[in-house]
Amino acid sequence: MNRRPVLDLGFARLDLAREQRQGLPEVVYGPGKTDAQISAIVSGLLRHNTGPVLVTRVESATAAALCRDVDGGTYDQEARLLVWRPAPRRAFSVMVVAAGTADRPVAAEAHAVATAVGLDTSAVHDVGVAGLDRILQVRAELEASDVVIVVAGMEGALASVVGGLVRCPVIAVPTSTGYGASLEGVTALLAMHASCAAGITVVNIDSGFSAAMAAHRIAQQVKGAR
Amino acid sequence: MNRRPVLDLGFARLDLAREQRQGLPEVVYGPGKTDAQISAIVSGLLRHNTGPVLVTRVESATAAALCRDVDGGTYDQEARLLVWRPAPRRAFSVMVVAAGTADRPVAAEAHAVATAVGLDTSAVHDVGVAGLDRILQVRAELEASDVVIVVAGMEGALASVVGGLVRCPVIAVPTSTGYGASLEGVTALLAMHASCAAGITVVNIDSGFSAAMAAHRIAQQVKGAR
Amino acid sequence: MNRRPVLDLGFARLDLAREQRQGLPEVVYGPGKTDAQISAIVSGLLRHNTGPVLVTRVESATAAALCRDVDGGTYDQEARLLVWRPAPRRAFSVMVVAAGTADRPVAAEAHAVATAVGLDTSAVHDVGVAGLDRILQVRAELEASDVVIVVAGMEGALASVVGGLVRCPVIAVPTSTGYGASLEGVTALLAMHASCAAGITVVNIDSGFSAAMAAHRIAQQVKGAR
Amino acid sequence: MNRRPVLDLGFARLDLAREQRQGLPEVVYGPGKTDAQISAIVSGLLRHNTGPVLVTRVESATAAALCRDVDGGTYDQEARLLVWRPAPRRAFSVMVVAAGTADRPVAAEAHAVATAVGLDTSAVHDVGVAGLDRILQVRAELEASDVVIVVAGMEGALASVVGGLVRCPVIAVPTSTGYGASLEGVTALLAMHASCAAGITVVNIDSGFSAAMAAHRIAQQVKGAR
Amino acid sequence: MNRRPVLDLGFARLDLAREQRQGLPEVVYGPGKTDAQISAIVSGLLRHNTGPVLVTRVESATAAALCRDVDGGTYDQEARLLVWRPAPRRAFSVMVVAAGTADRPVAAEAHAVATAVGLDTSAVHDVGVAGLDRILQVRAELEASDVVIVVAGMEGALASVVGGLVRCPVIAVPTSTGYGASLEGVTALLAMHASCAAGITVVNIDSGFSAAMAAHRIAQQVKGAR
Amino acid sequence: MNRRPVLDLGFARLDLAREQRQGLPEVVYGPGKTDAQISAIVSGLLRHNTGPVLVTRVESATAAALCRDVDGGTYDQEARLLVWRPAPRRAFSVMVVAAGTADRPVAAEAHAVATAVGLDTSAVHDVGVAGLDRILQVRAELEASDVVIVVAGMEGALASVVGGLVRCPVIAVPTSTGYGASLEGVTALLAMHASCAAGITVVNIDSGFSAAMAAHRIAQQVKGAR
Amino acid sequence: MNRRPVLDLGFARLDLAREQRQGLPEVVYGPGKTDAQISAIVSGLLRHNTGPVLVTRVESATAAALCRDVDGGTYDQEARLLVWRPAPRRAFSVMVVAAGTADRPVAAEAHAVATAVGLDTSAVHDVGVAGLDRILQVRAELEASDVVIVVAGMEGALASVVGGLVRCPVIAVPTSTGYGASLEGVTALLAMHASCAAGITVVNIDSGFSAAMAAHRIAQQVKGAR
Amino acid sequence: MNRRPVLDLGFARLDLAREQRQGLPEVVYGPGKTDAQISAIVSGLLRHNTGPVLVTRVESATAAALCRDVDGGTYDQEARLLVWRPAPRRAFSVMVVAAGTADRPVAAEAHAVATAVGLDTSAVHDVGVAGLDRILQVRAELEASDVVIVVAGMEGALASVVGGLVRCPVIAVPTSTGYGASLEGVTALLAMHASCAAGITVVNIDSGFSAAMAAHRIAQQVKGAR
Repeated sequence: MNRRPVLDLGFARLDLAREQRQGLPEVVYGPGKTDAQISAIVSGLLRHNTGPVLVTRVESATAAALCRDVDGGTYDQEARLLVWRPAPRRAFSVMVVAAGTADRPVAAEAHAVATAVGLDTSAVHDVGVAGLDRILQVRAELEASDVVIVVAGMEGALASVVGGLVRCPVIAVPTSTGYGASLEGVTALLAMHASCAAGITVVNIDSGFSAAMAAHRIAQQVKGAR
Repeated sequence: MNRRPVLDLGFARLDLAREQRQGLPEVVYGPGKTDAQISAIVSGLLRHNTGPVLVTRVESATAAALCRDVDGGTYDQEARLLVWRPAPRRAFSVMVVAAGTADRPVAAEAHAVATAVGLDTSAVHDVGVAGLDRILQVRAELEASDVVIVVAGMEGALASVVGGLVRCPVIAVPTSTGYGASLEGVTALLAMHASCAAGITVVNIDSGFSAAMAAHRIAQQVKGAR
Repeated sequence: MNRRPVLDLGFARLDLAREQRQGLPEVVYGPGKTDAQISAIVSGLLRHNTGPVLVTRVESATAAALCRDVDGGTYDQEARLLVWRPAPRRAFSVMVVAAGTADRPVAAEAHAVATAVGLDTSAVHDVGVAGLDRILQVRAELEASDVVIVVAGMEGALASVVGGLVRCPVIAVPTSTGYGASLEGVTALLAMHASCAAGITVVNIDSGFSAAMAAHRIAQQVKGAR
Repeated sequence: MNRRPVLDLGFARLDLAREQRQGLPEVVYGPGKTDAQISAIVSGLLRHNTGPVLVTRVESATAAALCRDVDGGTYDQEARLLVWRPAPRRAFSVMVVAAGTADRPVAAEAHAVATAVGLDTSAVHDVGVAGLDRILQVRAELEASDVVIVVAGMEGALASVVGGLVRCPVIAVPTSTGYGASLEGVTALLAMHASCAAGITVVNIDSGFSAAMAAHRIAQQVKGAR
Repeated sequence: MNRRPVLDLGFARLDLAREQRQGLPEVVYGPGKTDAQISAIVSGLLRHNTGPVLVTRVESATAAALCRDVDGGTYDQEARLLVWRPAPRRAFSVMVVAAGTADRPVAAEAHAVATAVGLDTSAVHDVGVAGLDRILQVRAELEASDVVIVVAGMEGALASVVGGLVRCPVIAVPTSTGYGASLEGVTALLAMHASCAAGITVVNIDSGFSAAMAAHRIAQQVKGAR
Repeated sequence: MNRRPVLDLGFARLDLAREQRQGLPEVVYGPGKTDAQISAIVSGLLRHNTGPVLVTRVESATAAALCRDVDGGTYDQEARLLVWRPAPRRAFSVMVVAAGTADRPVAAEAHAVATAVGLDTSAVHDVGVAGLDRILQVRAELEASDVVIVVAGMEGALASVVGGLVRCPVIAVPTSTGYGASLEGVTALLAMHASCAAGITVVNIDSGFSAAMAAHRIAQQVKGAR
Repeated sequence: MNRRPVLDLGFARLDLAREQRQGLPEVVYGPGKTDAQISAIVSGLLRHNTGPVLVTRVESATAAALCRDVDGGTYDQEARLLVWRPAPRRAFSVMVVAAGTADRPVAAEAHAVATAVGLDTSAVHDVGVAGLDRILQVRAELEASDVVIVVAGMEGALASVVGGLVRCPVIAVPTSTGYGASLEGVTALLAMHASCAAGITVVNIDSGFSAAMAAHRIAQQVKGAR
Repeated sequence: MNRRPVLDLGFARLDLAREQRQGLPEVVYGPGKTDAQISAIVSGLLRHNTGPVLVTRVESATAAALCRDVDGGTYDQEARLLVWRPAPRRAFSVMVVAAGTADRPVAAEAHAVATAVGLDTSAVHDVGVAGLDRILQVRAELEASDVVIVVAGMEGALASVVGGLVRCPVIAVPTSTGYGASLEGVTALLAMHASCAAGITVVNIDSGFSAAMAAHRIAQQVKGAR
């Protein structure tokens, strides 16, 4: 039982063993928690774990308050991410590819989380398939990546095209951009699953966070010293 | 009232004025009609109209019976189409582009109907976006077409890619190929509507017929002598 | 590679070759972009392309700012469209037919975009099928059009009725007007696809823009000097 | 308690008071019941009630067996309806209007049930809105009816058009004809609800029976001698 | 053509013949129209027609402005209905039955519209089936009505129960009250269609207006002097 | 670890501790398993556990084979249930109430499973709410039950009505009976969740088994000697 | 008729017999009612019934007003619950288990309602299955409960895990927490129904109230002295 | 152009460069192709590529015919997979974990495809979360794997639980097992996306193939010599 301690804060039970079990402390989902709750959770994780501590989906006012409360945090506004104790960069390259400018916030979250957990992350924006040359221009970079994260809303076709170009793992993030038949991201999610490109995997709508964590799982397997 | 005669067969009311109004007689949808009913409708249209007479979605046994019954019909098995009095070919080129081999029957229907109404139709198969070179190889032919019909199931991404390559009208036909998240064509239909390629239009799932008729409407407008 | 230059603005990659490839520069979708970003994109397109530059779905405050920033722009408030360098009018007639007064904004977008790209566009409003005489009264104008764009929400029945009256291409735009069973336009979209009028095509919900672009593709094919 | 007797057959509890309460005995839904069960229910209703006894959705083999078992039954194969003791015809006219030939079985059920309960029923088929003249030709008959039942699948637009033509009650029956975007009748059902024609009412998909019963309720109110 | 004049206001085309054709002038749907537009439409209908003029879904500020603009209007705030020239009451009784207090606004619209077109309307509230005695207490009134309108959200069970109690036409109005599995009225709409009570008809979610108009169609048929 | 042994059969891992943990051995879901697999599982459970062994959804041919293979089994054809070593009846009464005769198989499964696990089970059929007297007639029995299981398809209104009549736990089982708007049980499931009767709980569509198991959980709590 | 009096307040009809029939007065659903209406209902129930009076989903401003209006009320802000005359605690233990901190308001409603009707309620938070040790740590408390209420959004997996751990009744409450594929609680609701843990029951999305009422029904059966 | 040859078979265009581009020849999806077509494709790939050639979803009769036609094929009946020239096993371990016995065919496909492309694959079955000990018993093997593929239908909760136990990549495959609320796998797909376990990725319903290909992408990245 020693192996999996849980820290009970009353309103939350921190899974302190997650860091040892999975190579990363619990990540805090911001919405629905008070500043005081987040503050207590972050402090607890900083004290009892040793790796990076992240809070996702935080608006700037909350971020400012938390940074005052707990020293050492940095805030990425576009990504809405708060980070304490980021991991040092490892030689594992992740390329975040976003179809349109409206997909930027989701791509930014993927980029910021991946960076915070130590992945060597780069990004390219606005390479939707209606102008194929834009994605073909970055083909060499895509082929040189260890993982590609494709962020696309609307019909999500970029995931299939990229999936057909590279041999590495491709993680597709459907976004809720678009209107009407886009059904707030459900169309892109379904289309990415129905993709004709073999071996693509998909995460939840708008979840740049999930894609980065999936890349983290792969990175750990590749070069992680357990 | 003279302008729009209707022929009442009891079980059906033939819109004889459609040929004059829209440049083509009524097209008969086969399913749910008896051989005798189809036979009577075809005969009526042949007698009272002068253009091509088509019956869609006909199985071979029915086709054989109808060809015995009404002289001059020809049957395209893959397209499941019966045609009497096909229109002479006009100088309007339609290219049918199908993503996968499983989309062939729908592509075949588009091809056969377009041909029967006089369009100069060609086809290319199995050019899904997971291997972009396949579609890029036929780029010149695509650019030379008056209309491109894109037939694709699963995630339907081919429509966006083709839409970005050509300047002519692109008519997308979602198909019910695929399984699971393909939702029997609904995913492809939604994805094609959410496409990032501007000015693509979409017809019903599996309806090669509708795409061909849409091409016919365009062709009429371009070079048709009313 | 010379044939398809891309202008990289960092936050966006402009597909400058689109004008040559498709007869029209990229159109900018306004939502989710800052004024500065739109301004930079518009300036880039004006400098590197020669045709009309359009920004869709722009609210009036943004429009005013952009018009101050980049000379020569005009704003259509009902259509929420910004235009620089509109194309000269060509002899290709497009009629926009709207079912109800609530469909006006979508019809206005179709009208304004079609006009901006040089089509000879007219409009008629409030001709829903519950009073058939209203649409029958404009039958002659409909029959004289090169393309008809039908804008309708609720059950979208106007598309089927118009589709049965004219021989030219009919592009249906479902709108999100209505409530309850209208499901924010999904019902009209599905109904238009299931239409009994052959050869109708459909674009995304509320996308007057897409319909105009589809008309532009047809117009180019008909009378365009490539 | 005398007012609402129930006959308990073990496998079924007959609501014998329904005839007095609602002007018609229980109608038996055939599917999922054995021949013996249907036979017992029909016999019970014939003995304890005095009005027409109906069994819906019966295939011919079952119908033949039941007619042998219980004297006096007649079977309408297209409507799949079995009737004992039909009601005498009353001066209440119901017109069943079907959009396409594929809608015939549903229209036939509406027609047969309405006739069996004593309504003066007529029918017209194949008057879909893609050829408006067909429905306009029967406008006088429509206007002379006490109730119009509109049977239509696909996009269901006929309901809106008829709703705008007549002043009497219009009962719309969506059917599962069509494919793809028709969603087995759900699209027509939603579209009929979203109709722009005021005061149309809708019944379940493929339920000619429900429409006839709704007409019966109206007829009872109008001229019924309670 | 004399029979069906249309008044073209530019932004709207009034179907002036509707009054003669259907026994009631066009009813104006308020949302999405400016005060000036509504005012012009109302004035046009008052001048060219003779029956009641109704505007639905009007908020109080708009109502006040319109009443100042066009003399003789009265406003029902709960029903959000504006009425000019209401019809005299006829001997046709409509009972509006609402399941819960949250359904009141929809019931109020049904009540106010039915009253405005001359029906003798009454209402009973809060008789949901979880306390059967409440609905059984008003059984006599229900049985004495010419039409019953059942307004219910959540699971919509009241429609089935009332449908089984009375012989007259029952018009069910699903409402968007409830949360979660209520799916904003879609569940009630589907449930009312799937009802085990024969001959119930259904109108759109939250549309007290449609139910009243359906009652009006029946009333016209019963006692209307055409 | 001693407390929770698992028996590994290769193709299946039997959770032998479930009997001790939950008061009942694992129940075997028949579909998708070969006769040999079921036989091995049943034998394993009979040997290593002491309570009743059940196999659900078994067709008669399979049942006959299994009864030959493993002594002591009995088969209930309507319920499609195989039972070995049924539990002795306890003084805990469960009443299964089914809305229509088409709901019988689901009701039969609930009845047979509840009986096999030792509950004192009775049933009443065909008491749908369109004839309220049928359910009111059995009100006393309902009030005397420890648990009521309501089995209903279509709109599922019986659950609300029963929920309002009794004080004991009510477990609602939506069934896939009905057509069209019934959406194969989804409508009833949603409607039961949206029910206005407080404290009703719901199980999966057509799962008489789940309802019986839920009753078993309650019965254990009430009078079970742990 | 004496047995089931109804108090008619005009805008509402109080089912005063519910307390005798079901062991608890009507519970008032706050949204959509004015303060004055709630006040009148509460006063009526306090006067004519003897048990606890509850108002759910009340915001604090309304709560304050009502407490001023009707003496003796207490308000639980997190649960948004108002209570008058709470029931004395009985020896029936209910454990509310919530997967994440975002599920707290729903869990709080379940806890507060269960407490108000006299159940001995406790709660544990933040025990989602991604860190199994957290739920396994409270296994003994779970096993000692008379009923467990599981509150979980997102994928709702906690219900299956708890269902497999305990023998007592498990009532699952899906919540609308999460985004994207969570579909505002619909995914959790469906997943809980499809659970592999036998005998779990489910209530409406976010309805802590329903779960508590279901527990109350069980408690009454177990130890209630009617 | 030399880099990406395409072999045109008329009915199909083989993407011969895929092997070089992605490390594996095209995989053939069997359904919808004739034996002769599959045979020609397989022969083409064997001749022009050097890696393993796979045909998925093949029934036994077809498999037998193809093995006669093209030497060297082996068939796995449970996985419905045909393989020629399987890759030698590499030191990359994949563990396939299936929730129930009904998920076996999908798990078998994942297992067979992964083995055919050279991964060191093992499997464990019937470890659903209703009996947690079953999955906890194999925890050490899970922790030792390079990738875990979780195959689960119904509510798909196993993916969350495994995702919380291991640090390596977890690929979730929803299956169409289950009935009712399982919605043929859509519920499991959505639930897996909404999972509370961070960094899980998901592939299409029933697609063991996709999961294996995703594992292959990861394996290539980890130890592949490009």
